[in-house]
Amino acid sequence: MENSRFEKQLEFLIKADKLKNVLRQTVLVDESRQETVAEHSWHFALTAATLLEYSNFPKIDMLKVLKMALVHDLVEVYAGDTFAYDEAGYADKEEREKEAADRIFGLLPEEQAAEFRGLWEEFEAMKTPEAVYAAAVDRLQPFINNYMTRGHTWRLHKVTSDKVYRRMEVVKQAMPELWGFVDEVIRDSIKKGYIKE
Amino acid sequence: MENSRFEKQLEFLIKADKLKNVLRQTVLVDESRQETVAEHSWHFALTAATLLEYSNFPKIDMLKVLKMALVHDLVEVYAGDTFAYDEAGYADKEEREKEAADRIFGLLPEEQAAEFRGLWEEFEAMKTPEAVYAAAVDRLQPFINNYMTRGHTWRLHKVTSDKVYRRMEVVKQAMPELWGFVDEVIRDSIKKGYIKE
Repeated sequence: MENSRFEKQLEFLIKADKLKNVLRQTVLVDESRQETVAEHSWHFALTAATLLEYSNFPKIDMLKVLKMALVHDLVEVYAGDTFAYDEAGYADKEEREKEAADRIFGLLPEEQAAEFRGLWEEFEAMKTPEAVYAAAVDRLQPFINNYMTRGHTWRLHKVTSDKVYRRMEVVKQAMPELWGFVDEVIRDSIKKGYIKE
Repeated sequence: MENSRFEKQLEFLIKADKLKNVLRQTVLVDESRQETVAEHSWHFALTAATLLEYSNFPKIDMLKVLKMALVHDLVEVYAGDTFAYDEAGYADKEEREKEAADRIFGLLPEEQAAEFRGLWEEFEAMKTPEAVYAAAVDRLQPFINNYMTRGHTWRLHKVTSDKVYRRMEVVKQAMPELWGFVDEVIRDSIKKGYIKE
């Protein structure tokens, strides 16, 4: 099947395997090790499917949200993971990720490359209901893991509460009912010394 | 939010984190280690989204397929992973997994527990187009990884070609266009000594 559509898709799926090698700052609930980007992508998608009822949007295309979750970090096959609170890393993140998107999505047949890249771009732009909901869930998953691990990542990087509030802000817009939970966790984390005031 | 719906959903999502601790027999493409069930679930879902065009069914509810992929191995939080070619392990697999399903899905609010458990049961029964397509993809993902790793799992367990053919049979039904690829990989794996004739 040389050069066939399927050959291209196979190459893409084999390269995607590398997300099992990219580590995130977040650790597993049992604190045994950092989670991989592949694991995060699955947990994000499962969380999106579980918490949909809290979405503030009258209509959400859940198939699009789940596809977004599956592809949202594929650029990290080539660009690696940039820690959410790493300001230096964020400086050239966009450029690095655009180049990586060309490479990873470019492996696919043309119209499929456009679809998957489009999902990633929509997710990054955070304008549509699906992208805003997905962004909120993408932040909730590590937020919960961080709290369960006594603020592992927050302590390690001496993260301050204003930065956590800013990062979690999108939850207020996408899932306002859960803002009370987010606020409660941040306040308790400050009290317990997981997050610096 | 004690005892609220959200508390239950949160407990479920925290317990689900354990799929990052359950190892499968399949190794990563770079052969560095075994993949986790969480990673497999993501790769399975991504593969399902990528290869849909080869489905032999006139209509497939892709949202259902992706949700199936996300929850299909959740019972392994409690039941662990049973290797596909482990006949002894398969003897009590059903009973162990039913008990595990009671526990993991039972954490959710009632109607959501029923929905997720229903997806898992439908997947296991392999009767609907979605479940048959999902079963084919669930087998293709480790099949590709095995081939890319010079038959790692097949060699380790001295798996014979008749068993691989039997396990992959569902691809013929769900994605007949890809049967040529499956057959070619098995023949080449026999030739190279990855699979015993």
